[in-house]
Amino acid sequence: MHYTFSDRVQSLKPSAIREIFKYAADPTVVSLSAGNPAPEAFPAKEIAEISANLMERDPISALQYSVTEGYAPLREFVSDYMKRSHNVGSDLDDILITSGAQQIMDLTSKAILNEGDVVICENPSFIGSLNTFRSYNARLVGVPIESDGMNIAALEDALKKEPNAKFIYTIPNFQNPSGVTMSEEKRHAVYELAVKYNVLIIEDNPYGDLRFAGEFLPCIKSFDTEGIVIYAGSFSKVISPGMRVGFTIAPKEIIQKLVVCKQGQDVHTNIWSQIVCFEFLTKYDFDAHLARLRAIYKEKAAYTMALMDENLLPNITYQKIDGGLFLWCNLPEGTDMQKFCLDAVNNKVCVVPGSAFMANPEDQTNSFRINYSTPTNEQLKKGIEILGKMAKEI
Amino acid sequence: MHYTFSDRVQSLKPSAIREIFKYAADPTVVSLSAGNPAPEAFPAKEIAEISANLMERDPISALQYSVTEGYAPLREFVSDYMKRSHNVGSDLDDILITSGAQQIMDLTSKAILNEGDVVICENPSFIGSLNTFRSYNARLVGVPIESDGMNIAALEDALKKEPNAKFIYTIPNFQNPSGVTMSEEKRHAVYELAVKYNVLIIEDNPYGDLRFAGEFLPCIKSFDTEGIVIYAGSFSKVISPGMRVGFTIAPKEIIQKLVVCKQGQDVHTNIWSQIVCFEFLTKYDFDAHLARLRAIYKEKAAYTMALMDENLLPNITYQKIDGGLFLWCNLPEGTDMQKFCLDAVNNKVCVVPGSAFMANPEDQTNSFRINYSTPTNEQLKKGIEILGKMAKEI
Repeated sequence: MHYTFSDRVQSLKPSAIREIFKYAADPTVVSLSAGNPAPEAFPAKEIAEISANLMERDPISALQYSVTEGYAPLREFVSDYMKRSHNVGSDLDDILITSGAQQIMDLTSKAILNEGDVVICENPSFIGSLNTFRSYNARLVGVPIESDGMNIAALEDALKKEPNAKFIYTIPNFQNPSGVTMSEEKRHAVYELAVKYNVLIIEDNPYGDLRFAGEFLPCIKSFDTEGIVIYAGSFSKVISPGMRVGFTIAPKEIIQKLVVCKQGQDVHTNIWSQIVCFEFLTKYDFDAHLARLRAIYKEKAAYTMALMDENLLPNITYQKIDGGLFLWCNLPEGTDMQKFCLDAVNNKVCVVPGSAFMANPEDQTNSFRINYSTPTNEQLKKGIEILGKMAKEI
Repeated sequence: MHYTFSDRVQSLKPSAIREIFKYAADPTVVSLSAGNPAPEAFPAKEIAEISANLMERDPISALQYSVTEGYAPLREFVSDYMKRSHNVGSDLDDILITSGAQQIMDLTSKAILNEGDVVICENPSFIGSLNTFRSYNARLVGVPIESDGMNIAALEDALKKEPNAKFIYTIPNFQNPSGVTMSEEKRHAVYELAVKYNVLIIEDNPYGDLRFAGEFLPCIKSFDTEGIVIYAGSFSKVISPGMRVGFTIAPKEIIQKLVVCKQGQDVHTNIWSQIVCFEFLTKYDFDAHLARLRAIYKEKAAYTMALMDENLLPNITYQKIDGGLFLWCNLPEGTDMQKFCLDAVNNKVCVVPGSAFMANPEDQTNSFRINYSTPTNEQLKKGIEILGKMAKEI
């Protein structure tokens, strides 16, 4: 049988990162290529307690079909919490619980994009989201990211040139892969441009709570008097990614369409995990838990950056981070980045070539991504020392 | 802000069934409109034991990111089990674990259908799947369903007329909503026609294991020497729907595309629930569990059909069932079915109008769907007696 696939998936390839995971599965290879939360960051004991109690008290509520919108007490908690802690959400908005924040990208694309429409994104940006947009035959237009976020002139230029742009996709905090946090000034500028050119914004904020230094900056959604921002939140980095629970706060009319799309996609998000998240958030001290996570990541990031300073500089440079999970490393101009990443695998250390994150195949980059949260300190030392030896030979 | 949505969702409406659930939420209304497994059918005690043990032994495996394809031991078990028990799966095939079987409909549509392509389905058929196909701008062509499955002449006619038909969607066992089981002869005929006209088949089999009378019939997938059948399986009806774990067994080349689409949709299925399913299937006696479920449904269906015989006949007729969750009730010709269903709600009993399940809005039906698995026996008695009074007044 010769299979004929849809136009939209003809050219889609498996995520380069997930392909790299196959090398990373070799136990002799140090993987700096993942994006997993540190295993010690999971509130495993608390989750076990909550779940045991739930299964004792009311197992049917956790095992039966539920509603597409999500577990009502969790939606109410998220609404209150996001308003109180981030000034996110208004009477214009509603909340949908999703199967991870990744699903928000898919549902939004499905509800908003016609084939050939344009998505404007930071360049580089998160490959998982970019691939979702591509899977709806969207055309990606990348806006270069600087040390304080998108180049605003380039953003306006793109908005002018692309009348079919439907939304701007941004990760304002500790961006994946660049580690960059957008300045407050640029957050306002992005919002104002979106209003001016009548496009939506998807504000993807999986790492915002993992700030271990510096001041918290306001979410773009907190400026949203016009109802143009779709906020994507996730419990993957602060509770557990395996449970696949995320949420979106967006204008009611948009949420209604996302709900209809979600009905056809997975009916509802795993209700057992939704209830466990809700009880963890409300019966335990979530702020103290976040403080504990920040301490873990602060120490681990400091350890990693000290190793990088010692081993990688001056040939491989990088920007210091105040949170998140990723460090973006720049090779000297003229270095063959793809070859460097391949050599690294052969030397038993796995990083992600920056090309995986570019909006278009012709966009050039000399950078690669390192993750510091998944490996142990021993693995970080071993891996960065190998990269260091390679750096000296550039 | 005026929002512009994609062409594909402009006309999509929330599932009529889910809308009816809103009436059904009124505690004074008897709901015969759901499709939930009987609460007493859940292996709640076993799930609690497995989960407690897992959280004690290896919580990180249940809480960390996992692979898109699904939990490897579960995939291996499903592969062996489906081969052994249903002769489903061959060297041509691979397995993907999904977030419920609903996700298989979405991933397959995304990977196979271009906008405007045709899906051939039984008429009536499951609204959740039909809406997913619609959400990819597919055109639905309905083939009338008879007491032994699709009208084969009408199927061939549709295949001849529709060169852009990409797949046939069928629920061969205890079809939702009609309760019909396709005869073995027709299963072969559907398969042969699909081969002849070079289209795929999605065989959706959520209820097959819930046969409480009569002989098990072979799956269409068990004939699949050509690699044209995408088999959709689910643990929702035999373990728990709240956990959202399903699986598809399909040709390798198709599975590869579904995996790429799933990466962009929810990364992977809740891994905690995947492990719990695997351990329930392998550490407990799954066959004994299925026997217990069949006994529950056999008794409950017999109770319901006795009530229907007593109260609804002769004005409202229905076909007896040997399994599954649904009964399809036919009003006398000339009765206004929509009005009958609305009157029923006003009389405090909720059923689903058959029009919700039709492939196209102009397709006429005089039938409505009853579910017997969710209500208690007291509710069944009360609800069917109300319908009986209404039947006498037709």
